[in-house]
Amino acid sequence: MAIGFQFIISLFSLFSVTIAFAPILPRFPSSAVSAELKHRSHCTQNGLYRTKFFTQILDHFNFNPQSTQTFQQRYLINDTFWGGAKKNAPIFVYTGNEGNIEWFTQNTGFMFENAPPFQALLVFIEHRYYGKSIPYGGNKAVAYANTSTLGYLSSTQALADYATLIIDLKKNLSAHDSPIVVFGGSYGGMLAAWFRMKYPHIAIGALASSAPILHFMDLVSPDIFISIITQDFKSESENCYKVLKGSWKLIEETAKKPGGMELLRKTFRICKSDDFGTDSLASWLRTAWIYTAMTDYPTPSNFLNPLPPYPVKKMCEAIDSSVTKNNTLGKLYAAANVYYNYTGTTTCFNLDDDSDPHDLGGWQWQACTEMIMPVGGSNKNSIFPEYEWLYEDREAYCDSFYNVTPRPYWITTEFGGHAIDRVLKRFASNIIFFNGLRDPWSGGGVLKTISKSVVAIVAERGAHHVDLRYSSKEDPKWLKDIRKQEVKIIASWISQYYRDLKTNS
Amino acid sequence: MAIGFQFIISLFSLFSVTIAFAPILPRFPSSAVSAELKHRSHCTQNGLYRTKFFTQILDHFNFNPQSTQTFQQRYLINDTFWGGAKKNAPIFVYTGNEGNIEWFTQNTGFMFENAPPFQALLVFIEHRYYGKSIPYGGNKAVAYANTSTLGYLSSTQALADYATLIIDLKKNLSAHDSPIVVFGGSYGGMLAAWFRMKYPHIAIGALASSAPILHFMDLVSPDIFISIITQDFKSESENCYKVLKGSWKLIEETAKKPGGMELLRKTFRICKSDDFGTDSLASWLRTAWIYTAMTDYPTPSNFLNPLPPYPVKKMCEAIDSSVTKNNTLGKLYAAANVYYNYTGTTTCFNLDDDSDPHDLGGWQWQACTEMIMPVGGSNKNSIFPEYEWLYEDREAYCDSFYNVTPRPYWITTEFGGHAIDRVLKRFASNIIFFNGLRDPWSGGGVLKTISKSVVAIVAERGAHHVDLRYSSKEDPKWLKDIRKQEVKIIASWISQYYRDLKTNS
Repeated sequence: MAIGFQFIISLFSLFSVTIAFAPILPRFPSSAVSAELKHRSHCTQNGLYRTKFFTQILDHFNFNPQSTQTFQQRYLINDTFWGGAKKNAPIFVYTGNEGNIEWFTQNTGFMFENAPPFQALLVFIEHRYYGKSIPYGGNKAVAYANTSTLGYLSSTQALADYATLIIDLKKNLSAHDSPIVVFGGSYGGMLAAWFRMKYPHIAIGALASSAPILHFMDLVSPDIFISIITQDFKSESENCYKVLKGSWKLIEETAKKPGGMELLRKTFRICKSDDFGTDSLASWLRTAWIYTAMTDYPTPSNFLNPLPPYPVKKMCEAIDSSVTKNNTLGKLYAAANVYYNYTGTTTCFNLDDDSDPHDLGGWQWQACTEMIMPVGGSNKNSIFPEYEWLYEDREAYCDSFYNVTPRPYWITTEFGGHAIDRVLKRFASNIIFFNGLRDPWSGGGVLKTISKSVVAIVAERGAHHVDLRYSSKEDPKWLKDIRKQEVKIIASWISQYYRDLKTNS
Repeated sequence: MAIGFQFIISLFSLFSVTIAFAPILPRFPSSAVSAELKHRSHCTQNGLYRTKFFTQILDHFNFNPQSTQTFQQRYLINDTFWGGAKKNAPIFVYTGNEGNIEWFTQNTGFMFENAPPFQALLVFIEHRYYGKSIPYGGNKAVAYANTSTLGYLSSTQALADYATLIIDLKKNLSAHDSPIVVFGGSYGGMLAAWFRMKYPHIAIGALASSAPILHFMDLVSPDIFISIITQDFKSESENCYKVLKGSWKLIEETAKKPGGMELLRKTFRICKSDDFGTDSLASWLRTAWIYTAMTDYPTPSNFLNPLPPYPVKKMCEAIDSSVTKNNTLGKLYAAANVYYNYTGTTTCFNLDDDSDPHDLGGWQWQACTEMIMPVGGSNKNSIFPEYEWLYEDREAYCDSFYNVTPRPYWITTEFGGHAIDRVLKRFASNIIFFNGLRDPWSGGGVLKTISKSVVAIVAERGAHHVDLRYSSKEDPKWLKDIRKQEVKIIASWISQYYRDLKTNS
């Protein structure tokens, strides 16, 4: 779920996955950009897209003139392969997530690779309050200043933004009859699915990749996220699982011994300037295990950090290696090194790096208001210490941080979730829910096909929205097949739309 | 569309259908209440329902604590015939319109009459800002004070109210698996249809009666409303049409003659205290023709005013009558008398009666923000003077009255409307759109069946949501048949739901 999906603070537990914690983020620009596209594109900025801004309404649901301020919403556009308005050529729209849209765009090669065969216009819309799409004149300090200015940051407002922008764009392009297909991964995938559900008059279909639309209260076990991560590591080796499971106690015991903290500093190459504690070391390791499980891609990647193919396997290989023998701390370091230092260029680590290069900070507000996604519960079989997820902890945190009370049942009120198969069977069409079962977020995904055109695609070996990534020659067959299947389904939506259009006119 | 649907002021035209004009409203309590129900009901207040209040969130789409004030939303409930939660017996919900919910409840006999066969719980929810459902502590003066307090009066907020209240009510009743069917007429019918579209996880189906969801800009001719009224009168007699068409000039000419105003006062029995002008007389007559066309029911009724069966016919009979011979003004008075004085108890009329017994005043705000329904254009064949409906007039009026600028394209952005058949064919089910073609609002209705379960029922002789009214022995066969058809369809939704429920569990 990218790092926007973070956890509830538990200040007194070693296991303190947090809302506020910003994990270590990728430091290198994405290299996975198709060279061909780069050069064929007539875009100026970076070969992938032109950057535009749209004057967006701040509050779609209130007509008080004081609430109808506007802001500049960024979107990225690539018309290199577009067949044009006269042909009613399709428009592919990415419904932006909780961060800088450029980052998601660069990691959504699927759309770029499918623009030529579909002759599609590509549009990537940034989510309000993220990246450069900041209300209050683009002044982030003001926009994030208090609950009054943050109040307009919500999923319903974001969906209405997308509706408003798309309609205006089609009007400007005179592309009234061009079909819109929406795409999104993670929270962006939730928005894509919800957009098709709420705005079927605008989008003819949605590819919702790794979209945990069921990851809400009373719908999912708060343990499932960590259970899946545990299973990921356990599936590589039983020893890997045991070492990770025992590590927290080992770190605490080591720290208590004379010279223990120095041993930890040396083993984990923690910078001398970092006045660390066992909590921050545990958090640093936890981050590595969680995000590596999420991005356990079959080919080299650079989404959160640069990683080798199947990095979970690599971590477990490091743990199981005979090189480190009985040096368990050394094994943990070697595993962490896969996530933090695959390029091998880092000489020491600052555990509390709270930089936020993808501008994901706004998620904390969303997690304190409507996005009450129970995540981080850890049962006794988990690789993490036991931990009970409690709504009350979230409520207390949000009250103390923002003086705001979450609405834990709002999302299911607005978008549903209960008995989703029964509901969508009778009132939906043209949605693909992709999930990779290695991805801890798959626990809140739609994993069963609901109807002929509301289809679940499940990849046993897949990770977080792996289908949306650029293809590579090294992709395994299952991934190639899944992308082919998705393309075929999207093509069928578009054909159906053109048939309907012809019949009507 | 009840009197909430009013028109744009045109101060300089004789033909000044207005937004602000509150027509004469019924002065007598509804007599069309089934005696049987009255007595079998164990409800206290009036034999039809108990009155309850729900603590509702003021702003569903903003999490700023200052916006999350609550207000008391009224709803009426009748559980006399409910089969109960254990049986998963259905719940019929009326999605309240722009006025006092008691009035709509009393005029929705269809739900009361179908509660016993369906063993249904009946719930009638009042729309925010109307009746007793007033934010700001129920203080209407505050709630209507300015654009800031009125800002929360919108259709999207109202729909979210219904979703929130229904979920809470089901929880309280432990009726998790009871199917919800929503009903509504006029604006309430628009809300019922939109509720099924936006909240299919809450309502399994919607009966949207006389719901002009297509009566928006770029979708409908602004002349259509008046054209239908013209046709209603013309269909009774060509002479009736001609007399009405010529009346405006006649009134103006009469007024200019010496003693003309006194003649008009005498003819139309205008009270001595009423310092009237030709504008107010014209407005008074126009109101009578419009609302009589809307409520041209086949049996005696008392929705807007007490009326005989087929009152348009009665009006034309009065105009065509040989009793008034060549006294054209007398003919007009006799026709108006059908609407204003069918009971014969009124001795003189105050033309500018602006009482608002059904509390419909909030519509003006809605008509100045999102409900830009082009109504009132009058072409050269109309019974009214020629008049061009212009969006700019609305804009100017709303700017001067509220200092607010309408968003004329918001409703179609949020709910769709363009190519509705194509959209709903692929993404909708279980909606009945009823329209009576005598009803001027049918011009913006869905008149063609879209799919197997998105069905248009059209009654050539029908008026404004006639199907929802209490049945009577005098009902014509077509009306009985239509109600039977509606019941059959609703029964099929419920059966399908129970089958789905069984399959799933």
